[in-house]
Amino acid sequence: MILEVAILQVKAGMTDDFEHSFKKASAIISSMKGYISHELQKCMEEDRKYILLVKWETLQDHTEGFRGSEAYLEWKSLLHHFYDPFPTVEHYEAVDLS
Amino acid sequence: MILEVAILQVKAGMTDDFEHSFKKASAIISSMKGYISHELQKCMEEDRKYILLVKWETLQDHTEGFRGSEAYLEWKSLLHHFYDPFPTVEHYEAVDLS
Repeated sequence: MILEVAILQVKAGMTDDFEHSFKKASAIISSMKGYISHELQKCMEEDRKYILLVKWETLQDHTEGFRGSEAYLEWKSLLHHFYDPFPTVEHYEAVDLS
Repeated sequence: MILEVAILQVKAGMTDDFEHSFKKASAIISSMKGYISHELQKCMEEDRKYILLVKWETLQDHTEGFRGSEAYLEWKSLLHHFYDPFPTVEHYEAVDLS
């Protein structure tokens, strides 16, 4: 399992529209192969800042499966115009703390 | 419930020691009032970068309860010397996607 992390900065005056569009986009990502779970969280200290956390079975499920899909075109058209700057996406693997 | 997020940059050559110390530190944070869960995840694209995600019942459980505790002195002495630069910690609240 891997964790996709994106810090999202939304343009001024657009946070309500962004959250509304994200609800629609949630149905898209949730239907993808290898998808496990996702959370959108809003920053308490900085206005218009969010973090998106998505768990995938493998890195390729995100980078090849999702990004190479027809569904990704719809995801992009719903969300990408809200961001400034355009976000960097990173992937993480859990450290075993046991 | 709130999410604490810290992006951690660990000094060169110290990642093994950091992960070892973090296992000890995990027992400290897990015993605090208001603690729900935590994950330490290692970045796949950038060496020596981690993300710490901690779920707390309230913001004050982290900022006042944990940071004001005796246990936090031990947490600091276990972990803070590994970081360069010293991390910024932010708090997030889940956006309702239903």
